[in-house]
Order: sequence, then structure tokens, then C-alpha cells
Amino acid sequence: MIQFKRYFDFDLNDDAQKKMMNAFGSLVYEKEKGVSGYYNLPYDSVNLLKEIKNYMLNEDGVYESAKNIVVIGIGGSSLGTKAINSMLKHKYKNIKNLIFLENPDPVTIFENLSEIKKENSIFAVVSKSGGTVETISIFKTVLSFFDMDLSQDRKRVIVISDEGSPLCKFADSYNIKAFTIPDNVGGRFSVLSAVGVVPLALSGYKVEDMLNGAKEFMENFFDTKEEHIALKAFFQVENYKKYPMNILFSYADCLEDFTKWFVQLWAESLGKIDKNANNVGLTPIGHIGSVDQHSFLQLIMQGPKDKTVTFIKIKNFEQDIKIPDIELKNLTKSDYTAGYSFNDLINAECDATKESMTAQKIPVDMIILDKINESNIGALIMYFELLTSYAGALFDINTYDQPGVEFGKKILIKKLRRKR
Amino acid sequence: MIQFKRYFDFDLNDDAQKKMMNAFGSLVYEKEKGVSGYYNLPYDSVNLLKEIKNYMLNEDGVYESAKNIVVIGIGGSSLGTKAINSMLKHKYKNIKNLIFLENPDPVTIFENLSEIKKENSIFAVVSKSGGTVETISIFKTVLSFFDMDLSQDRKRVIVISDEGSPLCKFADSYNIKAFTIPDNVGGRFSVLSAVGVVPLALSGYKVEDMLNGAKEFMENFFDTKEEHIALKAFFQVENYKKYPMNILFSYADCLEDFTKWFVQLWAESLGKIDKNANNVGLTPIGHIGSVDQHSFLQLIMQGPKDKTVTFIKIKNFEQDIKIPDIELKNLTKSDYTAGYSFNDLINAECDATKESMTAQKIPVDMIILDKINESNIGALIMYFELLTSYAGALFDINTYDQPGVEFGKKILIKKLRRKR
Repeated sequence: MIQFKRYFDFDLNDDAQKKMMNAFGSLVYEKEKGVSGYYNLPYDSVNLLKEIKNYMLNEDGVYESAKNIVVIGIGGSSLGTKAINSMLKHKYKNIKNLIFLENPDPVTIFENLSEIKKENSIFAVVSKSGGTVETISIFKTVLSFFDMDLSQDRKRVIVISDEGSPLCKFADSYNIKAFTIPDNVGGRFSVLSAVGVVPLALSGYKVEDMLNGAKEFMENFFDTKEEHIALKAFFQVENYKKYPMNILFSYADCLEDFTKWFVQLWAESLGKIDKNANNVGLTPIGHIGSVDQHSFLQLIMQGPKDKTVTFIKIKNFEQDIKIPDIELKNLTKSDYTAGYSFNDLINAECDATKESMTAQKIPVDMIILDKINESNIGALIMYFELLTSYAGALFDINTYDQPGVEFGKKILIKKLRRKR
Repeated sequence: MIQFKRYFDFDLNDDAQKKMMNAFGSLVYEKEKGVSGYYNLPYDSVNLLKEIKNYMLNEDGVYESAKNIVVIGIGGSSLGTKAINSMLKHKYKNIKNLIFLENPDPVTIFENLSEIKKENSIFAVVSKSGGTVETISIFKTVLSFFDMDLSQDRKRVIVISDEGSPLCKFADSYNIKAFTIPDNVGGRFSVLSAVGVVPLALSGYKVEDMLNGAKEFMENFFDTKEEHIALKAFFQVENYKKYPMNILFSYADCLEDFTKWFVQLWAESLGKIDKNANNVGLTPIGHIGSVDQHSFLQLIMQGPKDKTVTFIKIKNFEQDIKIPDIELKNLTKSDYTAGYSFNDLINAECDATKESMTAQKIPVDMIILDKINESNIGALIMYFELLTSYAGALFDINTYDQPGVEFGKKILIKKLRRKR
């Protein structure tokens, strides 16, 4: 169960109501016309689960003996999977280890490869376009590092990509199993497609619960039972010049990678040139409480009032520790925490920080998960995706492309070709 | 060796020159009058090294048999140490493991404690004020978890705090070794004090080289040989409304914790109410390349032009991997990377991204380290500290306090006291 609370008010005149209605209409249209395919993933990805089971059964014990699922991918091909793994892994003892090879940093690549044995690993190469230069270069390094022979080792390689992409064609050529991504699902909206579903299911998570959580939340939204989304998106877009930054302040360490997933979703989707040639967008910033109260809070409280803040709080942590009721000489001033647990403390800090911000009239909202589980995570993902689509519709931009990154790619290719 | 490059120009009229000169004068004053003590740390902390050696020798083999140095601290008490450890640890095989207990998150605390044995650990409790509630609560948990008896185990506990603080008095009561922080050195400027020096030296890093690197850089600055600092600080402060955000885009995974250290330094120091009751400040945001090109770059390129970007690049990574010259069927489009290494690739990506931004007239500068080592890290830390002080002087604010976080602390104490 997830609760959504808003601690600021604003006027909703007729014009605002109309804008919100129109945006809702856009989302209905996007869903029905397949402008973006992410709306269908909670239904369609259920079929993937059978395909994954077949792979598990058919590969001569490769799956059974695997301890590691190594995801080779970057950006939308890894952020969502990583976020979900980071949220869930402390709940399970017998899952297969997910390892991510993302950044083309030689030190990290070498460290990661040194910890893996080919014999107990499955390598999932994930790239929507099928040609991401970092991913293909790292995949080649994996082949070379483990002296892999694709005729023999093809069963421990899988590919996740758009149908007909270079990567899928490569898979075909070597008789490697390929899982496909619907081509109307963009990278940052793809976590509930094969991109996330395959590695997470192979690892052992309850992916079906996650899809159901997402489905239920989405259906409620289209049944107009989640109106808070419209209100929040409207406030953000209407005030994007006054409040250009949105802080996602999550009070649990396991949510750090989730804030990174959100940063990509919000930044890449909304940072666009609109139809009137304006540069629009909102800047997402991820922080973790309470640790970043000791780092970023001063700026929010006394710096320019240019930020909105969304808190995420987990009511019941999977594990709790009571703060010991020990009296230490000269340290009795902190004894007011005695009798409480760390679960109590971190949530009380979240509430106190929220109150200190509302007292400063900073627009704040809060998302409260009763606990971390697959179903809540599915709902949370769908919430942020719908919020993003809603904001994109209000900006009247293309939420699903990213034309601004192409220029740098071209310069890179030129640079490397020229040098050779 | 570190190079500093700026890829944008601006006018420097007489008024600007005067402001810059005044700010420089403020820093000279701060240093000479001890307004902040961080300017003296490269000299004073050398004495700490002897004190640390004494501790190592005198504690009946506790140090020798230790495998872990467990830092219990949050914010300024951990971020700097963690940043340096993350940058350096891949260079060494025989150092003692630094473990950080920071956030009051029960899941993380339990996971960390489960991996530690008391018998091979030294616990460093770090708190400038000596009463940080998260730190004291976690310290009590450590005592209880390992069933520690302070009369017996006092040798494996050390304390790092202000002289005369509750924590130092506690240490006195139990005959525990205390290292002190000069009271004119604030938490976020304290990494070159006992806060960072003690755990890093105990772990086995070349702290003296780091102090020397910082000293040399600072002396050059006060000899007016690092004028780029004045120019950058001036541009940032003068344009803080036009460019409210500064992205630190670091092209190496090992720099991620360093970007977090920078975020605290910049956010807490500059986010202030100035003398005319204006809310001033600049919002720091950390990103890692090339991975965040796939996440945040679109927003920088096509979103509102409200960001400046500082790149950090490492010329020579400690370890490199050649991208294998393998031809894979249907994947030949990425073969332009063949012959290059990942060190080449990641740096070419940094350059290409920089060029794509300058083409959009985004104010960009770049910091180039020839390699990662203690001396360069010392210089880099001092660079960002001086830049922050310079910007603070130009804003005409108190760079070294953080009054905005007190309100939330008071609410927390009220909340917990009320509930009991």
C-alpha cells in the first residue's frame, strides 16, 4: 500500500481544470494509440515470464548452476533493474546475484570481471538500439576476458533488444536467445519490459507481483482514482520557472538507486525544446535521508526558494534494530532516542525535516510505502511514469524522445575515427 | 598535476576586478585571523601523524591485528574520508578496510555489522559537536551488538571530536584515545583535520602526500598563481540567478563519493540568507560520466539553460583495458572503438560531451588530473575549498555556519520526547 500526501495548496481555476483534463486526455490517447507502449507492459510482460521459464529449463543446467546474472547495459538498460534489485535484495537469501557492467571505466570493469567466474554466470546484453557503444565494447571485453567461444558458450549469453536491431541479428547469427523490447517503449520507460523483467526474474524476484502492482495502480489512475498525479504535475509544470528543481528525498539507503532511475526519467523526458522553441524542463535531484540532511538541507532551507521536495518514507523496514538503552558518561544528551528503534528514528527525522520545510513554505509532498515489496515497487514505478507523462503532456512536448544527446555521439565517432 | 581549463569568456570591468580583489583580501583575512582554521590544516595536521603512530604502537597489537577501520559518523564526519577512500582504494592491496556507519537505516546498519568482527576492528566515533544523534545512537548499537565492555575494549575505540565536547569528555571518562578537531574548522571543511587524517592514516594511505598536495596548492593560490579560482567564483556568484545550478560531471566511477563531498561543501557553505535578507546560494549536482550522459545530458542540452558544468577527467587511469578487436556478426557498427582502450573511450566521451555543450554556449570548465594519487587529491580538495570560500566572500555571507538545519533538529527532539 502506498499513500500520497501533499502539504501545499494552490488555486484551481477553470483554465487549470481544462489544462488538466486535456493532459489526461493526452495520456488516454497515448495509451490507446500506442504512442508509448509502456502502458501495456503490465499486461504484455506476463507472457515474458513463460518465455523466461522456458529459457531456464532448456539450457542444460546453465541456469541452475548460475550464481550471477551479469547485466551489460547502460542508462535505461540498467538503471531500473538496478533500482529494483537495490530495493529488494536485502529481503532474500537465495537469489542469484545481479551484477551490472555499465560505465566504460576500466578500473570498475576490471574489478567486476575479477569477481565473476564464467562457469556460474549468465550474461545479459541489454541495449534498446542494439548498438550502444559502451555496451558492445564491454560485451567484447567479457568475451575476451573469459576466453568465451560463442558456439560453446552461447547458452550463457542472452540478448535484450528491439526486434530486428543489430544486437538481435547478432543473436540470431550465433543461435543466442533474444528477448525483445516493444519498439514503442523507450529506454527510460522500459523497466517493466524484458529490460527489467528478464534479469529480475532470472535473479529470482517475484516479477508477477510487480507487474500486478503496476497494473492496479495504472487502472486506478485511468479510473480517475489517483487525482493527486494531475494536481502535482500541474503545479510542477505551471511553476517550472519558479521551482526549476525537484528534490527526491528518500529516507532509506536501499532507495538510492531508485532516485537515480527517477533522475533519468524526469530529466530526459521533460528537458526539451517545446513547440514555441522554448527550452523547458525540470531538474531532478536525488538525496537520501537522514544522511543528506547533513549535506543539502541548509541550502533548501536558507538558499533560493527554487526547489520542491518529494519525500519517500518506508513505514516498516524489513529489519529493525532497537537503539540500546545504554547510559554512557557525558553522552546522556542523546538519550532521548532510548526506547525507539532506528526505524522510528529515521522516520521521525523525515517528518521533522518535512515540517521544517513546510514552515518555510517550501512545496512538499510525501510518498509513504507501508513496506518494500514487489507490488509496491510496481506501483511506485507506474506512479512516477504516469506523473512524467502527465507533466510532458502539460508542457506539450514529446516526452519519449531524446534528440539532445545525438550531437555528442556524432562528435565522439568523429573523434575516434579521426585519431586512428 | 592538475590542469584547470575554462571554455567560456566574460567581461571583467573595473568593478569586477575590485570585487575579486576584495574577496581575495577576505580569504587572506580569514586565514590570518583564523576565521576558519582549514587554511592551517596542511601544516598542523602533520603533527597528528606522530600522534597516530603512537596510537598504532601502544595499543598491544590492537592496530596490527585490525583489518577494518570502522568510521561511525555522518555528513562532514564521513563524506570526505569516504570520498578519498573511494578514489584510492583500488590502488592498494594491503590496506585496512574502511567501513562507514553513517545513516540511521536499520537494514544497512545490520548488514554492515554482520560483516565485521570486533576482534579485527577499530571503531572511530567521529562527531565535531560530539553529540550527533545518529552517530551516538549507532555507536551504542555497536557496543551492544558486539557485547563490548569499555574497560576491556577501550583500545579498539577512538574518538575524533572538538576538544571539550561531550564525546571527548566521554573518552576521558573511559580512558579512550581522543583525537581533536580545531574548533574553528567546520565539519565540511574538516577532511584534512583528524576527521579524515586519522582514519585514512590508520587505513594505510599516504596522508602526508595529501597534506603536501593541499599545502602546495594553497600556497600557489595565496601567491596569486591560481587566478582561475577568482574568475570562476566571480562568474558563478555574479550569475547565480541565471545559472542557479552547478553540475560536477566526473568521468570515473571512483569519483562518485567525491561529488557527494563537493555537494555538501558547496550547498551548505553558500546556501544562506545574506546581509540584505536575500536567500542566496548555488545548487550543486553530482553526476558520473559517461553513464549519466544516458540520463541527465538531454536536460542539460535542451532544457532551460540554467546550469554550468564542471568536468573532471583523469588522464591516466590506474588500470586500463584494451577494447578487444573482435568482429561480431551484425555488430560491426561499433568497431570504430577497436584499437582504443577504455581509458581512451571514457575520456573521448568526456571531450565530446564537453564540445556538444560549448556548442550550446553552456558555461563549461574542466579539471584534468594526470592520475589519481594522494598529492592530487590533496590539491583537488584544497581547490574546491578555496573556490567555496571565494564564492562565499563574493556573496558576502558566513561561509562556515549552517543555521538552517537547527530548526529540524529541534522538531525531532520535541517529537521523540513527546511520544515517550
